[in-house]
Amino acid sequence: MWSIIILIIFCVIAYFITDELIPKLKHLFINAGLYGIDLCKVSQEKIPEALGVVSGCIFLVTIFLFIPIAFGNDLMDRGSFPHNEFAELLAALLSICCMLLLGFADDVLNLKWRYKLLLPTVASLPLLVVYYVNFNSTTFVVPLPLRQFFGVSVNIGFLYYIYMGMLAVFCTNAINILAGINGLEVGQSLVIALSIIVFNLFELKGDQFKAHYFSLHIMIPYLSTTLALFKHNWFPSRVFVGDTFCYVSGMTFAVVGILSHFSKTVLLFFLPQIINFLYSVPQLFHIIPCPRHRLPKYSAETNLLQASRTVIAKKDQKYLSKKIVEVLSFFRLLDKFEDDTSIVMNNMTLINLFLIKFGPMSEVRLTVMLLIFQVLCTCVAFIIRYPLASYFYDV
Amino acid sequence: MWSIIILIIFCVIAYFITDELIPKLKHLFINAGLYGIDLCKVSQEKIPEALGVVSGCIFLVTIFLFIPIAFGNDLMDRGSFPHNEFAELLAALLSICCMLLLGFADDVLNLKWRYKLLLPTVASLPLLVVYYVNFNSTTFVVPLPLRQFFGVSVNIGFLYYIYMGMLAVFCTNAINILAGINGLEVGQSLVIALSIIVFNLFELKGDQFKAHYFSLHIMIPYLSTTLALFKHNWFPSRVFVGDTFCYVSGMTFAVVGILSHFSKTVLLFFLPQIINFLYSVPQLFHIIPCPRHRLPKYSAETNLLQASRTVIAKKDQKYLSKKIVEVLSFFRLLDKFEDDTSIVMNNMTLINLFLIKFGPMSEVRLTVMLLIFQVLCTCVAFIIRYPLASYFYDV
Repeated sequence: MWSIIILIIFCVIAYFITDELIPKLKHLFINAGLYGIDLCKVSQEKIPEALGVVSGCIFLVTIFLFIPIAFGNDLMDRGSFPHNEFAELLAALLSICCMLLLGFADDVLNLKWRYKLLLPTVASLPLLVVYYVNFNSTTFVVPLPLRQFFGVSVNIGFLYYIYMGMLAVFCTNAINILAGINGLEVGQSLVIALSIIVFNLFELKGDQFKAHYFSLHIMIPYLSTTLALFKHNWFPSRVFVGDTFCYVSGMTFAVVGILSHFSKTVLLFFLPQIINFLYSVPQLFHIIPCPRHRLPKYSAETNLLQASRTVIAKKDQKYLSKKIVEVLSFFRLLDKFEDDTSIVMNNMTLINLFLIKFGPMSEVRLTVMLLIFQVLCTCVAFIIRYPLASYFYDV
Repeated sequence: MWSIIILIIFCVIAYFITDELIPKLKHLFINAGLYGIDLCKVSQEKIPEALGVVSGCIFLVTIFLFIPIAFGNDLMDRGSFPHNEFAELLAALLSICCMLLLGFADDVLNLKWRYKLLLPTVASLPLLVVYYVNFNSTTFVVPLPLRQFFGVSVNIGFLYYIYMGMLAVFCTNAINILAGINGLEVGQSLVIALSIIVFNLFELKGDQFKAHYFSLHIMIPYLSTTLALFKHNWFPSRVFVGDTFCYVSGMTFAVVGILSHFSKTVLLFFLPQIINFLYSVPQLFHIIPCPRHRLPKYSAETNLLQASRTVIAKKDQKYLSKKIVEVLSFFRLLDKFEDDTSIVMNNMTLINLFLIKFGPMSEVRLTVMLLIFQVLCTCVAFIIRYPLASYFYDV
């Protein structure tokens, strides 16, 4: 208990340091050519990019400095030192540090897609080894109605490791593709982080309290440094966070999900990201043409955002593409108009979906609406996790 | 034994991948503005900078992929899994990964000196915790002649941790300041790495064989990826390695020195770096004026390098500066000429010292001579470590 209070003091200090450092280091990023122009603004000002590396570094340093305190009592008595728990923490930090490096390298060098998928997989390897030696529980508990077919639990063995590796890849990329308007990446990550913290606090009374305690040790420093970043990234953004931030965030959530055994609950908190990913699939896999940017379109006259659009040439359209457009139109999930030669439709992102459903709106309003949606999804997640789960599992 | 053979196969593959990737990724670095002009060449070609990040990443990935094999037998029997050894490896990787990140950030952003000293200290924290829980041996064995005063061993307690933290800072920066001509950073690191590997092989028969085995698991992947980098960095350099490489190398040597308990021997292998550091101190601490670059001066007519020079205005000269110039001149370690108002002398680096002692020479010859000096120092180190040590310690 004491250690959590000290951790919170550390985190308050970390918040202020991050908040101080970000504006101080801005010019270094601009000098290094790490900047972008905000496409949803009139001003052509240079906004420094990849500032997520600052909050990420302070996040890591906070945990480093906290190690001697977290293991304080155990350090006194070396005979019973919990080497396995220490290895867990180190593996978690190693995976996060790798993603910080990869994210920053990506922001600087613009890496190819294959590296973006390959490296998180490799970075999660130490994590999987720790999981193997510390738990190696690869069973899913089967919901009550299905037990007559599968029994009480199903051991999926090696597949479980594939699942965990893919979780890391998914989390790191899912936040990265629900992005593009001021404050959205950081805002959604804050909501997810808070959801995880609340969930951990609920579960502190359970028999898995140690695992949730572990998760809190990582999530609270993450929350505090990210809050400081949020302050500078909120509309109108004075800094951009870069892939660095998205990768670190995704890996952090994957890490606590895997090591504290609530990866399915983490996925529930990713509901908007999953919806955005599924909705994006036709464009991500180039079944439907995908322009370089799918950001909403800014109109300087009205100062509002509207959905950006993609064009399908009818003569090039394949069967699959036709079917997708048909089905989505039927469910009113597309805003399209067509002439003889082509179909013009909105780019398939959750952001554009909000714009076609609720009409053009200001950037800040759009961000707020998407964040409210994220909060609502968290509520749904908690309903699924608690009242509903008791129908399907004997809790 | 088998595991070392598999490791070597991994490392051969890692060599070829690094060798392939470096020329492939070169243009990404140039596009990102990460390039320099070789000051010791006529050509004004852009040479990509910070390619050490490529060899560093593959170095880490090789060890990641090797983890399941290194702990293969232990993984079968989870009851007796050596969590402490695993935590050691993770802490080592974490420290190296942090330095890779810091080095790359430094190359991109040009960080201030205070961060360069602060961050390696923080990065070595997990290492020190591992050391504390796994060994916590903070005693120095006293040489025989001094035992009448101090006893057989002296426990320096907390100071030992300060010493280890400073070792990490020293190793990372010492390579970085003995640099500036094609192939020197990588060449000296290769000599040190090979020296450590030879030392480990000697000691495999001793009672500390496990620690030296551990060191080999880190040094062999380091050697192979660095060799590939060397190929591209050798005269005339097609890539520069950047601070990234120097930081990763220094931390790697510090890590194996600390965790395998031969930090004093590692320091012996750093003899040329220590000489260079001590010789540089008056300029590093600005007792004697220090220009932005202390590289040798290239003469396009002769295609030779000569010592670069600094100027002391006599009226500004302090007592300490006078004394230093006097003493060094007495030992013929300075090449200076003075008039009524100023003293012109060589910049105080080992590279310039070689140039004033052996006269102007070509860049490649200078690098070769410095590397031969490094090899000679390794021989001296082995003489101190083996025949001489037996006079002072009962081996």
